[in-house]
Amino acid sequence: MTPAEVAAHLNSLAKPPGSLGRLEDLAAQLCHLQQTLTPKTTPRRIVLFAADHGVVAEGVTAWPSEVTQLMVRTIARGRAASSVLAASTGTDLRVVDVGTLGPTSPEATLHVWKVRAGSRNLAREPALTVDEFRQAVAVGEKQAESAAEAGMVVVAAGEMGIGNTTPASCLTSLLTGSPTDETVGLGAGADDAILERKRRVVGEAVDRVRGKLPTDPETAIAAVCGLEIAAMAGFYRRAAVLKRTVVLDGFIATSAALVAERLWPGTARQMIAAHRSAEPGHAVALRQLGLKPILDNWGMRLGEGTGALIAMPLLDAAAAIMGMAMLHEAGVQ
Amino acid sequence: MTPAEVAAHLNSLAKPPGSLGRLEDLAAQLCHLQQTLTPKTTPRRIVLFAADHGVVAEGVTAWPSEVTQLMVRTIARGRAASSVLAASTGTDLRVVDVGTLGPTSPEATLHVWKVRAGSRNLAREPALTVDEFRQAVAVGEKQAESAAEAGMVVVAAGEMGIGNTTPASCLTSLLTGSPTDETVGLGAGADDAILERKRRVVGEAVDRVRGKLPTDPETAIAAVCGLEIAAMAGFYRRAAVLKRTVVLDGFIATSAALVAERLWPGTARQMIAAHRSAEPGHAVALRQLGLKPILDNWGMRLGEGTGALIAMPLLDAAAAIMGMAMLHEAGVQ
Repeated sequence: MTPAEVAAHLNSLAKPPGSLGRLEDLAAQLCHLQQTLTPKTTPRRIVLFAADHGVVAEGVTAWPSEVTQLMVRTIARGRAASSVLAASTGTDLRVVDVGTLGPTSPEATLHVWKVRAGSRNLAREPALTVDEFRQAVAVGEKQAESAAEAGMVVVAAGEMGIGNTTPASCLTSLLTGSPTDETVGLGAGADDAILERKRRVVGEAVDRVRGKLPTDPETAIAAVCGLEIAAMAGFYRRAAVLKRTVVLDGFIATSAALVAERLWPGTARQMIAAHRSAEPGHAVALRQLGLKPILDNWGMRLGEGTGALIAMPLLDAAAAIMGMAMLHEAGVQ
Repeated sequence: MTPAEVAAHLNSLAKPPGSLGRLEDLAAQLCHLQQTLTPKTTPRRIVLFAADHGVVAEGVTAWPSEVTQLMVRTIARGRAASSVLAASTGTDLRVVDVGTLGPTSPEATLHVWKVRAGSRNLAREPALTVDEFRQAVAVGEKQAESAAEAGMVVVAAGEMGIGNTTPASCLTSLLTGSPTDETVGLGAGADDAILERKRRVVGEAVDRVRGKLPTDPETAIAAVCGLEIAAMAGFYRRAAVLKRTVVLDGFIATSAALVAERLWPGTARQMIAAHRSAEPGHAVALRQLGLKPILDNWGMRLGEGTGALIAMPLLDAAAAIMGMAMLHEAGVQ
């Protein structure tokens, strides 16, 4: 099914051509990804990967690492932003602890494949070894397989990890070549002093590993990555191979998509970008991936998969219009 | 409940303040309109008012008047854009023929309160008498009452009426004082010649009635109005009095909101604007009403309530975040 065939069908529906605007673009994307004129958007699942970050020791965040576990527990109890939005949008939610600090919460809905208790401080040493990076990637791949086995046609990944805008900025600068003033933002509430430190940390870390990227991309990436970001990259890789429709969340998720696209080119072709967040690096990363977000200027910057979740009913609406009558069925010539 | 109290509650939820962006604005609007921290967004109904327009004789549209009835039938059969989007978003849909040409279709779900078979040609004579205008307003009021009686907490109005961007442009120019080059657009597919004629027709009609607006607003409005637009204005009037949460659709609906706000000031305070359409006059009308649309630049211009429908699940998501844990419940200090 070619894009022209999809466009011809959309233009034969009982409405002036193009009059549903972005909803028609989204419908066309779904048809193209699923190679059908009757795309499906359910059942669907979001997998949230949680991990901690050694770089928090540098004072690059407004919140302490303990908040990662507290929020993981709140998600698993159904009371976090992601939980209520998953329920509201009819999306199955799964939380996977791939590397938080301390003992893992005993919540029943929480899945644990801890590669290590947090990444190392990327300002001082490589955050992850290549082996750890690959283990985390494998955790994500397993989740994509499990979602596909459960019949999920649409999947998304999200994250919880205090400090993770710092590795996301590192990866975005590293993989797009953009300077740190375009990739470092306020995260979940940094002040000017934090922002200043964050810019310096990101700039130095990227400078340190940039030379390795052409010859040894995994080593370069692992050095400035996080466990949940690696897991999301693995999730995207496998979901793309399994031809799932992948909904991309915000800045952290998109940095993981950059990793996946760099290591396994073509992965981003299965993706629909949900929104453009308030983090400046998000726009840079989306541009590099050639993705146009569904929701623009919505100012979301929470992470936790919330951007992907909010887009789910818009996907439903886009799929629904494919069930409209054709102009000739309506009697319009 | 003051806006400050709502904001304080939103800021105490388990997320960085403001990190859900526009979704938080929308949640605040819902709380304010419903005067509660636990707003509801279901059950909900959209009422589509259909009518024809004598001004079609001037060659101001790309489609003939017969299409109004064909589309009303398609909506009632569940196969139009509005029908599939109502189903997708869990919104009850009702179609009311308030003045189409010819005999009314016998579809079971169609309600008929025909004031007259189409409005007169506003380029030659007043489109409606004040008495006809009031009858159509009463049809809309009745629908708002019926929705409230059925327990609908959120309501919207939409329309079907070939030619109705012409009266909508007249009303927008008349009631905002904006020139016709800011209020006349391509509608459902006009070409340059049609656009030229439409601008002239609108400009002349508005010039003819403008003088009456300060002293006899109903006569001025009725002269350039449509039956479905009058019905929508009545719907908004009564829905506001009954404290329903009103979701505003596109350009035609917003011209009806201008009518309602002019005749019954305060009506627009119950409204949430769904989107800003591709019609230039829509932005003008929204600005006058002081409403900021949920979806910007989505390029929708179909009408039929489709813009309001697409926003419904975003309202659900906004209401859902009010169920999140507070920061202290999550253990975050």
